[in-house]
Formats: sequence, structure tokens, C-alpha cells
Amino acid sequence: MTREKLFEQILQKKSYLCIGLDTDPKRLPEHLLDHEDPVFEFNRQIVEATADLCVAYKPNIAFYEAQGPKGWVSLEKTLEIIPEEIFTIADAKRGDIGNTSELYARAFFETMNFNSITVAPYMGADSVKPFLVQPGRWVILLALTSNPGSKDFQMLKLSDGNEEYLFEQVLRESANWASVGQMMYVVGATQGEYIERVRAIVPNHFLLVPGVGAQGGSLEEISRLGMNQQCGLLVNSSRAIIYASSGRDFAEKAREAALEVQKEMEQYLEQYVMHL
Amino acid sequence: MTREKLFEQILQKKSYLCIGLDTDPKRLPEHLLDHEDPVFEFNRQIVEATADLCVAYKPNIAFYEAQGPKGWVSLEKTLEIIPEEIFTIADAKRGDIGNTSELYARAFFETMNFNSITVAPYMGADSVKPFLVQPGRWVILLALTSNPGSKDFQMLKLSDGNEEYLFEQVLRESANWASVGQMMYVVGATQGEYIERVRAIVPNHFLLVPGVGAQGGSLEEISRLGMNQQCGLLVNSSRAIIYASSGRDFAEKAREAALEVQKEMEQYLEQYVMHL
Repeated sequence: MTREKLFEQILQKKSYLCIGLDTDPKRLPEHLLDHEDPVFEFNRQIVEATADLCVAYKPNIAFYEAQGPKGWVSLEKTLEIIPEEIFTIADAKRGDIGNTSELYARAFFETMNFNSITVAPYMGADSVKPFLVQPGRWVILLALTSNPGSKDFQMLKLSDGNEEYLFEQVLRESANWASVGQMMYVVGATQGEYIERVRAIVPNHFLLVPGVGAQGGSLEEISRLGMNQQCGLLVNSSRAIIYASSGRDFAEKAREAALEVQKEMEQYLEQYVMHL
Repeated sequence: MTREKLFEQILQKKSYLCIGLDTDPKRLPEHLLDHEDPVFEFNRQIVEATADLCVAYKPNIAFYEAQGPKGWVSLEKTLEIIPEEIFTIADAKRGDIGNTSELYARAFFETMNFNSITVAPYMGADSVKPFLVQPGRWVILLALTSNPGSKDFQMLKLSDGNEEYLFEQVLRESANWASVGQMMYVVGATQGEYIERVRAIVPNHFLLVPGVGAQGGSLEEISRLGMNQQCGLLVNSSRAIIYASSGRDFAEKAREAALEVQKEMEQYLEQYVMHL
């Protein structure tokens, strides 16, 4: 998917919501357990209830991988029913030596048909570039994550004279590897104070922002500090939406939760993007 | 598996060879293609031919993931026929926020029965610790990898006064997260000049060393500089062994290639470990 198409969809839906399909078999509503593939059925109903309110879906691959081969079947089926105009993110955090990253690219871009994949930067350029060979397929590189452990290494200061953090060098260096039309960055919403440092280095890139909701980040802050002229944000919410109810009304409640976020986003889009 | 059992096996087999089961469906000998599961059949014959010469098997998960659900079936079947005394490594390079890493741990330690998994350090302590909850299950953390991209971030110098590299801080910090009985490190054989810096920080840990063979690292150098009193090395070879021949004799030739490495290792074990 191109950057233009993504922005078009954001304007049309007045939303930059990404819904995390982190579907845990242990948290499914009981009435779904009779289905042949309860995980898929859960996802199907969530997608049906929310597709007009979000611009991206992001299954975290761990939830599917933990179930063995049948989890991959549920994932493939889920991907097939997501409407084509919606951006899809394989939240896989992969990355390996060149010939191996090529295989991961094959897994997520050919065996499955994802628009993008999250990638870990530690192994450097040749571990990331194999994901960048097809136009319209994106890398979403981990820059500054939302978890407490982000302080362990991402926030180490480098001896480059500028006292930069490691995550800043990751942004600066990797921005050379691809255009703004193929690269995005993961920047945690719990890191609001650093969003301006991120934008100083990558003003035009899209940022994928997890950590709003269950992890405590502020949508207002991230929108105010992080938006650019093409919105430039995809803000993810997983648990707060898909587990809004654990009963028969889970899809309806998920829609209500998504609608609430979308309404708030509409306001920020008007305030910070449309009036630019 | 305990550290003691692993060392016992090394002494018994006079080998610290890890064989990488990086089985590419496109590189299988033609006569195997009639089998119901050619990837598994290839692995089965490789394991049968080499199990007395190596102490570990390391499937790189990308090769299986690229095939979709059936790849995971081949992987599960392969794991089941590896003899119990041999150490198994899921070369997966995973790592995510805590509740998600837990699911990856479930995938590789419960759904499958691996002894260890390779993990990427970028997201910090809480992304690694969920893999450390079961005694006898190991994390093998990326420290200094064998690819050219290792220079991009792993070798950035930190402003900590000691002019340390990032990979040194990764070693120093993560060594606090677990005992030497649950943590190993990936250190590329192509990085011989840095092995002494690694050993200065983690003298007693096992190192998993890829990059010998196809990637050009020297077994002699890594053994001389990297061994400790419990050997402390698992040296991986993938392509040079499993693709030693592409014909009907592939398993026999794989054995010959493995035997040659084992003989060389026997010499270094006598020279650097047994005489200590």
C-alpha cells in the first residue's frame, strides 16, 4: 500500500486507529468455543464490527505462534477477510542475517499477504533491507518501545559528541535505508517526552504508536506532539478494544470502544492536520 | 538441559558442534520430493547421520515459517526425533513486551519442546525475562552477530567513560538477568578480534558461534580465544554440512563434513580444555 492511499483512508475514516488483533485463545468468549476455529471466528466478528473505524489491523504474531500450526491457519484466514483498503501489520519483530531475513519476508509478504512487518534493528542494515525489496511493502522498525526495558539499551547515550541516545542513531541511520514510503517506526506512547526528539530526526515518517490504553500512554499527547501534515501516526489499541467485553456482546462492545477512540482522533485530526 | 549435562556431552563426543537445520525446500535433493514431508525427511536423515558427532541442533525458524502452517508441522516432527541428550536451539531471534514474550516462550518451550531460544536484546530486560522462568530452558541473547550490519549499532561506542561498545553493555547488563546456567550469547566467528573483549565480560558463559564455514570465520581462532574450562562454546555450521552434497548421498556427505569438523574440535578440546 502506498503512503498516499494510507493517508486517503485516514482522511476518509477520520481515524488513525490501528486495532491489535492479539487474540488469546484463553480469553475468548465462551460461546465461541464451539466454533471450528474460535480464534478466527473472534477475529472475523471484531473485523466486521470495526472495519469502518480503523485504518490498520495488527495481529501480534506471538499469539498465533503459541498455538502451533493451527495458529498459523487462523492467522492466514484472518488476513484474508480484512478489507483490502485496510493496512495490515505483521507485528513479528523479526530480523536476522540477510539470507534469513529474506525468508521471513517471504513468510509475511508472499506466503501471507501483509502490507508491513515490524523489525528489530539490532542486527543492522543487512538484516532489514531484505524486507524492503517490494514497493508497497513496509518495514516498521523498532525505535523507542513502550515497555520499561526500553531504558536498558535504547536510551543509552552514545559517545558521538551530540550525546544522542541509541534510538536516535537507529532513526538517523535507518532513515537512509528506505524512503518514507516504505519505512515507519515504532515509538511507544508511553514515551511522550521523547516524541519531539523523534520528530526532529524523522519529521515525515509514519510512526506506529503502541502503548495507548492498557499500557497508559496519552492519545492527546502523542497526537499533539507527533502528528505531521500527512497525519504520520498509526495509534494502536489492542486489549482495550478487543476485550471490551468477554461476553456475547464482545463485538458490539469492541465497536463502541473503537468508536470512542475514533471520535477523539477525529478531533485531533481537525485540530492538528486538517487546519494546517 | 543443565550446563553440566551439556559439558558432559561435549566431553563424551569430543565435539562442540551445533548443526544448523536451515532446511530450504528449494535446496532439497530431488529424490526426496516424493516424500509426504520432504523437509522432515531431509532433517530426519541428517539427524540420523550426524547425531553422534554434534551436541546441538539449531533450526533457524525462518526456514519453516516461510512455508506457512506445514512448515511448523515439519519443525515439530523434526524436534521429536532429535535424541533427548542433544541440546536444541530455536533460532528465532524473538523478543517483545513482557506479556507477548511469554507467548513466544509458550510457543517454543511448551507447544514445542526446545531447550533454548535465541532472543534479540533491543527491547531490554522485560522482553527477555519471560523466557527465563523454567530451569533448564535457556536464552541465547544476540550480542555481537556475524553479519556486516553488526557494525551499524552493536559497535556504536557509548558515552559511559569507558568507551565501551553497545554489545559490551548488552553483555554486562544482561548477565545480571540470569545465571550462567540459563543464559548464553551469540558471538559471530567473523568477529575474532572482539572475542577477547567478550570473554573479559562473560568469562564463564557459553557462546553460540555462527559464521564458521560459509560466512568465513575461523574455528581455530574462535576456539583458541573463546574457550573456557567448560569449553564454553557451541560452534554452528549449517550450509557447509547439510548441503555438502545435493544428491542421493547428501546424508553420507553431511556426516563426512561433520566428522571433519568434529576431528578438528577434538584437537582444540585437548589443547585448550582438557589440559587445563
